[in-house]
Amino acid sequence: MMQGRKLSDYKNDENVQTYAVLKQVELRKTNAGKPYLAVVLEDSSMELAGMKWEITEEEAQTFQAGMVVAVSGMRQTYRDKPQLKIFEIRPTRIDEPQNPNDFMPHGPMKADEMEAEVNRLFLKILNPKWQRIVRYLLAKYHDEFYRYPAAKTNHHAFAGGLGYHTISIARLADQVANLYSSVDRSLLLAGALLHDLGKVIELSGPVATKYTRSGNLIGHIVLIDEQIVLAAQELKLDLFDEDLILLRHVVLAHHGQLEYGSPVQPLVREANVLHQLDELDANMQSFDQVLNQTEPGDFATRNWALDNRAVYRPEHDKN
Amino acid sequence: MMQGRKLSDYKNDENVQTYAVLKQVELRKTNAGKPYLAVVLEDSSMELAGMKWEITEEEAQTFQAGMVVAVSGMRQTYRDKPQLKIFEIRPTRIDEPQNPNDFMPHGPMKADEMEAEVNRLFLKILNPKWQRIVRYLLAKYHDEFYRYPAAKTNHHAFAGGLGYHTISIARLADQVANLYSSVDRSLLLAGALLHDLGKVIELSGPVATKYTRSGNLIGHIVLIDEQIVLAAQELKLDLFDEDLILLRHVVLAHHGQLEYGSPVQPLVREANVLHQLDELDANMQSFDQVLNQTEPGDFATRNWALDNRAVYRPEHDKN
Amino acid sequence: MMQGRKLSDYKNDENVQTYAVLKQVELRKTNAGKPYLAVVLEDSSMELAGMKWEITEEEAQTFQAGMVVAVSGMRQTYRDKPQLKIFEIRPTRIDEPQNPNDFMPHGPMKADEMEAEVNRLFLKILNPKWQRIVRYLLAKYHDEFYRYPAAKTNHHAFAGGLGYHTISIARLADQVANLYSSVDRSLLLAGALLHDLGKVIELSGPVATKYTRSGNLIGHIVLIDEQIVLAAQELKLDLFDEDLILLRHVVLAHHGQLEYGSPVQPLVREANVLHQLDELDANMQSFDQVLNQTEPGDFATRNWALDNRAVYRPEHDKN
Amino acid sequence: MMQGRKLSDYKNDENVQTYAVLKQVELRKTNAGKPYLAVVLEDSSMELAGMKWEITEEEAQTFQAGMVVAVSGMRQTYRDKPQLKIFEIRPTRIDEPQNPNDFMPHGPMKADEMEAEVNRLFLKILNPKWQRIVRYLLAKYHDEFYRYPAAKTNHHAFAGGLGYHTISIARLADQVANLYSSVDRSLLLAGALLHDLGKVIELSGPVATKYTRSGNLIGHIVLIDEQIVLAAQELKLDLFDEDLILLRHVVLAHHGQLEYGSPVQPLVREANVLHQLDELDANMQSFDQVLNQTEPGDFATRNWALDNRAVYRPEHDKN
Amino acid sequence: MMQGRKLSDYKNDENVQTYAVLKQVELRKTNAGKPYLAVVLEDSSMELAGMKWEITEEEAQTFQAGMVVAVSGMRQTYRDKPQLKIFEIRPTRIDEPQNPNDFMPHGPMKADEMEAEVNRLFLKILNPKWQRIVRYLLAKYHDEFYRYPAAKTNHHAFAGGLGYHTISIARLADQVANLYSSVDRSLLLAGALLHDLGKVIELSGPVATKYTRSGNLIGHIVLIDEQIVLAAQELKLDLFDEDLILLRHVVLAHHGQLEYGSPVQPLVREANVLHQLDELDANMQSFDQVLNQTEPGDFATRNWALDNRAVYRPEHDKN
Amino acid sequence: MMQGRKLSDYKNDENVQTYAVLKQVELRKTNAGKPYLAVVLEDSSMELAGMKWEITEEEAQTFQAGMVVAVSGMRQTYRDKPQLKIFEIRPTRIDEPQNPNDFMPHGPMKADEMEAEVNRLFLKILNPKWQRIVRYLLAKYHDEFYRYPAAKTNHHAFAGGLGYHTISIARLADQVANLYSSVDRSLLLAGALLHDLGKVIELSGPVATKYTRSGNLIGHIVLIDEQIVLAAQELKLDLFDEDLILLRHVVLAHHGQLEYGSPVQPLVREANVLHQLDELDANMQSFDQVLNQTEPGDFATRNWALDNRAVYRPEHDKN
Repeated sequence: MMQGRKLSDYKNDENVQTYAVLKQVELRKTNAGKPYLAVVLEDSSMELAGMKWEITEEEAQTFQAGMVVAVSGMRQTYRDKPQLKIFEIRPTRIDEPQNPNDFMPHGPMKADEMEAEVNRLFLKILNPKWQRIVRYLLAKYHDEFYRYPAAKTNHHAFAGGLGYHTISIARLADQVANLYSSVDRSLLLAGALLHDLGKVIELSGPVATKYTRSGNLIGHIVLIDEQIVLAAQELKLDLFDEDLILLRHVVLAHHGQLEYGSPVQPLVREANVLHQLDELDANMQSFDQVLNQTEPGDFATRNWALDNRAVYRPEHDKN
Repeated sequence: MMQGRKLSDYKNDENVQTYAVLKQVELRKTNAGKPYLAVVLEDSSMELAGMKWEITEEEAQTFQAGMVVAVSGMRQTYRDKPQLKIFEIRPTRIDEPQNPNDFMPHGPMKADEMEAEVNRLFLKILNPKWQRIVRYLLAKYHDEFYRYPAAKTNHHAFAGGLGYHTISIARLADQVANLYSSVDRSLLLAGALLHDLGKVIELSGPVATKYTRSGNLIGHIVLIDEQIVLAAQELKLDLFDEDLILLRHVVLAHHGQLEYGSPVQPLVREANVLHQLDELDANMQSFDQVLNQTEPGDFATRNWALDNRAVYRPEHDKN
Repeated sequence: MMQGRKLSDYKNDENVQTYAVLKQVELRKTNAGKPYLAVVLEDSSMELAGMKWEITEEEAQTFQAGMVVAVSGMRQTYRDKPQLKIFEIRPTRIDEPQNPNDFMPHGPMKADEMEAEVNRLFLKILNPKWQRIVRYLLAKYHDEFYRYPAAKTNHHAFAGGLGYHTISIARLADQVANLYSSVDRSLLLAGALLHDLGKVIELSGPVATKYTRSGNLIGHIVLIDEQIVLAAQELKLDLFDEDLILLRHVVLAHHGQLEYGSPVQPLVREANVLHQLDELDANMQSFDQVLNQTEPGDFATRNWALDNRAVYRPEHDKN
Repeated sequence: MMQGRKLSDYKNDENVQTYAVLKQVELRKTNAGKPYLAVVLEDSSMELAGMKWEITEEEAQTFQAGMVVAVSGMRQTYRDKPQLKIFEIRPTRIDEPQNPNDFMPHGPMKADEMEAEVNRLFLKILNPKWQRIVRYLLAKYHDEFYRYPAAKTNHHAFAGGLGYHTISIARLADQVANLYSSVDRSLLLAGALLHDLGKVIELSGPVATKYTRSGNLIGHIVLIDEQIVLAAQELKLDLFDEDLILLRHVVLAHHGQLEYGSPVQPLVREANVLHQLDELDANMQSFDQVLNQTEPGDFATRNWALDNRAVYRPEHDKN
Repeated sequence: MMQGRKLSDYKNDENVQTYAVLKQVELRKTNAGKPYLAVVLEDSSMELAGMKWEITEEEAQTFQAGMVVAVSGMRQTYRDKPQLKIFEIRPTRIDEPQNPNDFMPHGPMKADEMEAEVNRLFLKILNPKWQRIVRYLLAKYHDEFYRYPAAKTNHHAFAGGLGYHTISIARLADQVANLYSSVDRSLLLAGALLHDLGKVIELSGPVATKYTRSGNLIGHIVLIDEQIVLAAQELKLDLFDEDLILLRHVVLAHHGQLEYGSPVQPLVREANVLHQLDELDANMQSFDQVLNQTEPGDFATRNWALDNRAVYRPEHDKN
Repeated sequence: MMQGRKLSDYKNDENVQTYAVLKQVELRKTNAGKPYLAVVLEDSSMELAGMKWEITEEEAQTFQAGMVVAVSGMRQTYRDKPQLKIFEIRPTRIDEPQNPNDFMPHGPMKADEMEAEVNRLFLKILNPKWQRIVRYLLAKYHDEFYRYPAAKTNHHAFAGGLGYHTISIARLADQVANLYSSVDRSLLLAGALLHDLGKVIELSGPVATKYTRSGNLIGHIVLIDEQIVLAAQELKLDLFDEDLILLRHVVLAHHGQLEYGSPVQPLVREANVLHQLDELDANMQSFDQVLNQTEPGDFATRNWALDNRAVYRPEHDKN
């Protein structure tokens, strides 16, 4: 029945018929008290808000965030934003797509490509203590690392975003170590590979991502520090050996300033570089995301992840 | 030979002859290139800067921070501050006082009084998980807890200051739990007893106190969080049980705001109260310390630990 | 006719029939230009927004903020918030409740209980000058003091909130004076009892509370300082006697920092403590208010009065 | 004996013999413990630090801040700053100048000229309530108003500076009222004439100026507000009449922002204008003061009263 | 057909029939997906939002921002704000008004009056270099200077606002130069006349004003600095002559602080004064604009251009 | 006579005999009024403060900043810092070194190596407009570009520092363009090569570097923007062509935030990247500089150019 077109393939006022995953589901009421279903649909091409008018509460309860649905409707514009007026919506059948992961946006690399690249970069860590801890923790959280997003919203908020963001930074780190001989490549790469790994505890997972209780109450920076400490105990490494202190410092300081959630400021070169590369990669990803929705020659709407700037897409930008 | 008078007992231009501990020692040179010894002496009554002119480098090398010395000289005033012009200075002999701890300022409670009070307050923690962790860590760092200061300089910078500050806050916490029924006394007391315990790792000890490497690179807030995590593992408690998360949160958030070094803001009542009582007790101690050096009816000099305020000692203040 | 159930007793989609007071009344128009009445109803249990469709402008003019009404309708949910679809609404008749005070939320203490407690605490002020001024001003604003809220919205925004907030702080103050011998209990209590009394001039009253002209243009901190000055003149006390200056200082400085509206920072111990207890009590009340609307195990929505934090209600919280 | 030359008339390395007033006096000791006298001399031309070596404590006690002295010595330069190496210093005799006011810098207007100008501007206040209050308070503090400086240091820190600063602002205010018809000239002028009058209570006087106890603990903004309130009571004016509220508001808000010590922000036009003119005049005076000590074509040293800017004196500046 | 009444002449619920210019035009859709036209109408008296229900997309495409239209409808109130329910709307015919400039709000001075006043003030610039550059640039941008607004929204956002704002500041500047002899009137006036001239490049024009690409990417401060540099080259003036540097500095620094977009802080008197007068005039215009929409005795809604203050219109304000 | 040892080759208390350049010269007086010469000596190895006691004013006037001198003395330590007690000092003779450039610290690359590398990177700019402007300006300021430091103090404050800092950033930029396909390498490289070129006007030169008048009053960011504009005019390029606007934007925005002196925030990818690489390279250079003066295992003193951090040199750091 479905033609396999993606959500972003439809134009305004065109009839839509496709599969998508439900990112959010809410039963609301109109001013007049009538129930309707407000959803956010998502496939690998985009997110799209949708409204299903005239629905009973029983029908509505069928739907939950994370479910794959078959949906038909008409794409419209409401307050400058696209939305879908839904005619019909139902969970997919047994012979239709059912794996939400197939409908979620993915980064430009597949999981196995990412793993190969992480391994390549990992081999450049020469210090055996850092090597052992990084290997231990990448193994412990192997599956989550390549499936989780790097954020709930904002930059790298796609399945596999955590691995992809980590690789981007580790590649930059490798180049920086080439250009500055005073940088300890091993420490910088170890920090780069671990710095955001606490997100596999902070976030609930790749589908319908939320912050977990420990994510909110402890935060991914301390969560990964705790894991390093437990790993060191497990591997019988001295917690107060300088190498262990340095690795924890580099990871703890990677937000750069106390007001961004790091309990310490970067006090060694590698901590400073890691923080700056983290910012650079996050900004690049935000620019790409924002400008992809902006016409050449136009200014984008203000974006929170870019310090509320209204950034510009040049006319000759062909990305 | 010594009369047992304390440093603060001497008046200006009076001859001094006493024992004291060397808090700082430095070999300096005059404009004209001649070496002299610049020290900071300390006994339980005060700190006093001193200068020994005409000294050889060999003689100077005898002295180290933390050593007890016999000293004679004349008390003078230099730029509004008292100092000692030293006539003679030498390490104490075998039959003279040699334990630096006997010369350092102490808080108003002795170690055993403090321990009794901590035990009394500890018994009010009813939740067994928090009880076990607090007991485990107070035992692990038992000696340091009652000997360390709570800071290198500023408030509670005296031997035993850490225990005393902890008790002051725990007593306030107990009262607050009496006045507000919604506060969980057990959680608040557990947090109060542990909140600054990381200082036994952050600081080098009660004599000639400095920040340690891990103190600077990790900080006492995360250092105690790591110890809680290791204790939980040792005690076979589930790290992601809510009670464990709450205790870590209360401790991590006790600086109240990210810019003061907490990686998370207080999100539960007890974390909020602990932060506020910490501030209240630190301020009270700073006021006492500053106003003790101020005449009734005068304004003190600006003080960093009190947000640079020049606080006032009322005329009728008899403390 | 009315069954005496309170607003918070009704479930979603249940028919409502009760009395309540109108906290806000507004005549609005729909997109299509049709008038409707938008109100906020309040009884001692909660506030509830309501809409009465199809109403003429004449009918609408019957209603004013502060009026008691009989109302029937159906409770619904709109954008996650409860609201009342009103079927009928009319002012109460002569044989029905008419006193708005009976419908407003009250603090946990009655006026006479509060008065007794204030008197008990007042007797601990031993300095006769502070005693006379506090007695004079509590008498001058006696009625308002026990009836006014402590704020228009946010913490202690209920009838009697001003007295209740004052008592909470004075009780804490009394405990703090027990724990710190350097604190002048008389000054602290005098400051605690007067610190927010300017709100009886700043706010319009307990019903449909607004800021007055002098509230906006002068503010409650300076308004109570002016009253202290006038009281001193009336009682023939020397305005520049230290005791008088200290009392004014403690009251003027109770917001703690210039950017929060205090014209001076706290420069004496008691001013500092008063500020910190004010913050502690305001925070406790805000936590209670926010978490009462949050399920155990959930994070609340961000709250302005708590620095925009999304605070957490633990699973075992039974309040 | 004295030639009547002023301090600024002497060149480096020239012998000095003149009268001056002691702005500060301090007995210090050299590194070697010898007493010497450190003073700041002042006459209408400049301030000059001076050192008298070899002095006994008894001799030193002859000298106090505010005293007129006869002094001889040699002008030298120490760390880029001029200072006087004093040969002889003694209090002036009965037949020599003894009034410190004759030696202090004065603004460009004499007291009687200032009074005439204040009266001229006062007559432009047409509202009788503001007129009466301004007249009452200018009369109450008549003498202080024309003798006090406007600050302890920084801009207008000369005898008569308060009156001069007030007149400068009132003249600007008069012009602004000419250019903007929506400004109420009476309110703006009443606010301008009163805005800094609290400084006669905040500061100790024109000689050896210090902050008073109430200056530090209450501040000149609230001190003048209190006086307006007492004046209103004396003149039987209703304190909550709008005119009275507006006048207090304009005065209370004249620092413009809470963090600069105003308890309210300017909410009426005249309060806003008064704040801006206050800043403009203070800046102009600071520029004059700083650039008078700077050569044409040079940048001045950074100045606190000018937000730490290193301002520039153009080459053609002939002031 | 039209009666010539202006938009602000109509009362609520009155039938409207008039000409106006379209400030904004947008085709939106209702929740139910039906298209409607949302416009902002403007004539010299006010701006008014309007809705035209039931319109086809083809009809909607007739309308563009900047076009003069004939419109009929009913004035209503929606969420406290006036709006027009449009019955009919069409572009004006050949025999009807077609020049959008005739419908836009104008400042209190006509273009030729402004030009005369600018010339009068220009003649007070005595320095020939500044004279030549100001003359050159006022000539180069003659037409735009008297037609452009001084902002897209906020203060002076009316046709001719740029010239009017410039004149207001230049008049204030002239008075300030009278009152302070150390101010260089020529430099201050040259800076005042040029300071905002970059807005003729930054903004798109007086109708449907937007920021241009170079306005967003370079900003009016640097844009006018570039023009001064090109003018100097054209007039064969040495770019690094002090006079040229001073003029650029005064213009570059007129926002007063780096965070407001000036690349340098004001370091000469005239730069400082210009900044302060710019702020004063902008504030005065904002007060007028906000209070014109506020009843006497009421507080206005918070206004962004006035630092989010809710300013007050006194009861006796008759403006 | 001279042995050719460098300043950093001498130990404490060793006799020194060498050539060096005078970085600063000042004639000071002792407390007792005796003149002495205070200098800062510099050779390629370090800076060293020195004092020559007993000197006449005539002798002192021989010496000026920037002069090469022969000096003998003894190296000592004063307040933790090395200094030279000078026995003899004289300008070098005709047969001794006289070129100050030979004595100043240089970056790791020679001028011709830098030029080759700049040319290599320049060739990667493919857009002809950017190419022409960059070529024009690099030619116009060819000599200064390879000789000037990048700052007066702080990072890259050595001769040739400007070129070296530029190359470091351009190399990083080239790598970033490899890793992110959406970056326009030509624009990024053009911006990188020009971004700090205004420093050749802002600074006085490589010897005894000071800020120039236009450096202080205009700043290097606007100074280079002006030069781009003049170059465009010279090359007959349209100033408002998008390419020209983009290049100016990238250069103007390179300080990243308004408060750091950029008049606009980065709104295109390349501006954002350039800012981040500028910060990274400046930080790396500051770390190197600070840690070179720190022992392995020690924390450095707080450093202004590193946000006042006390950074750490790990024990195994062998740089």
